[in-house]
Amino acid sequence: MEREYTMKLQLAIDLLSVPDALALLHKVAPYVDVIELGTPLIKQEGLDVVTDIKAAYPEKLAFADMKTMDAGELEADLAFKAGADIMTVLGLAGDSTITGAVKAGKAHGKAVVADMIGVTDKPRRMKELKALGVSWVELHWVWMSRRRQGIRLRICWKWAEMLRFRFRLRVASIQSESKELNPPARRLRLRARQSMERRIRKSLRSVYGKESNTWDSANLL
Amino acid sequence: MEREYTMKLQLAIDLLSVPDALALLHKVAPYVDVIELGTPLIKQEGLDVVTDIKAAYPEKLAFADMKTMDAGELEADLAFKAGADIMTVLGLAGDSTITGAVKAGKAHGKAVVADMIGVTDKPRRMKELKALGVSWVELHWVWMSRRRQGIRLRICWKWAEMLRFRFRLRVASIQSESKELNPPARRLRLRARQSMERRIRKSLRSVYGKESNTWDSANLL
Repeated sequence: MEREYTMKLQLAIDLLSVPDALALLHKVAPYVDVIELGTPLIKQEGLDVVTDIKAAYPEKLAFADMKTMDAGELEADLAFKAGADIMTVLGLAGDSTITGAVKAGKAHGKAVVADMIGVTDKPRRMKELKALGVSWVELHWVWMSRRRQGIRLRICWKWAEMLRFRFRLRVASIQSESKELNPPARRLRLRARQSMERRIRKSLRSVYGKESNTWDSANLL
Repeated sequence: MEREYTMKLQLAIDLLSVPDALALLHKVAPYVDVIELGTPLIKQEGLDVVTDIKAAYPEKLAFADMKTMDAGELEADLAFKAGADIMTVLGLAGDSTITGAVKAGKAHGKAVVADMIGVTDKPRRMKELKALGVSWVELHWVWMSRRRQGIRLRICWKWAEMLRFRFRLRVASIQSESKELNPPARRLRLRARQSMERRIRKSLRSVYGKESNTWDSANLL
């Protein structure tokens, strides 16, 4: 089976105000396909942030990282009404929360994605989430915690192929300069990210025999 | 061991706008000790809702139901800066998220509470959460799902006594009239709530030999 993977670049806005988010996007939006509004940003500013960003960049996909645990239909409906193209539920959430969000997604013609953070038995839950109707799952692969919580990339691909289910691997968010990171820490972080990206490319080549990406965007919405 | 349990009434504001929340509180605030700002309300309106409510009712405790799953210190800090006296993390969250939130709670002199929704092995996780420094846990006992997810009240007390750990049992939120519930459903719901309250009182009497309450507020903050 030959599958086509096209690349989409998703930028997570981990800033905390609408003006800061807009200022950052003003610089980088041409290079970005999907604009992710982070959970802390949504909680701080409210869902108006999605409306404002979508109004400024209507051609981009707005990804509302709601991390919904409860009241799935209500929270998904709020996110989609605000202008989100994609919203997240927690894979850990109860099935009724997932199906509620999926119901709202269908009503709006938008995508509900399950964030697999904290899920122990990932392949099993991915299978269930697919049956419950989520569009794809989001697997975290944060370099800082990869030893403890990291997921080997080839295993992700194996799961995805096995379940014929799409996933997005969250590798690293582009973050604003953090005051908490001193220059050596920033260099270390940059090196780790570069190393990780090399490993991803290598892994993708070994699986697909070509440069590829972790986003299957063929049927995004 | 004789413990004194005093009653605090916590009202969950499950409305979706600051004006609606203020209008409801205008009617009921005299009867309420703790004002809970629901997760969907916070996501819809942003944390300004906490600031606005706390400004209007500075003598009440503001409970921000953040349901934080990630970025514990950041999200707790945002909630406390906005004026929350209490914020919630998910008991399902990773330990680093919990300790981050607890760190922010200590810095602000405020309480971090773990919401036990979705936790399978509750006594075990409660023990861990106590060690991690959360102030108390929140156990859901929603009548509509009590058959599937319900927790027997005597078991909650047993855990709490065993761990010498406080908990709050979320029994039922006072909700605005829901358009989705037709009159027979509302009556059914009311009857179920009354029946549940009778069972709680009975259970408390059987455990403590007197009318009591599920909130131990002696050392709330």
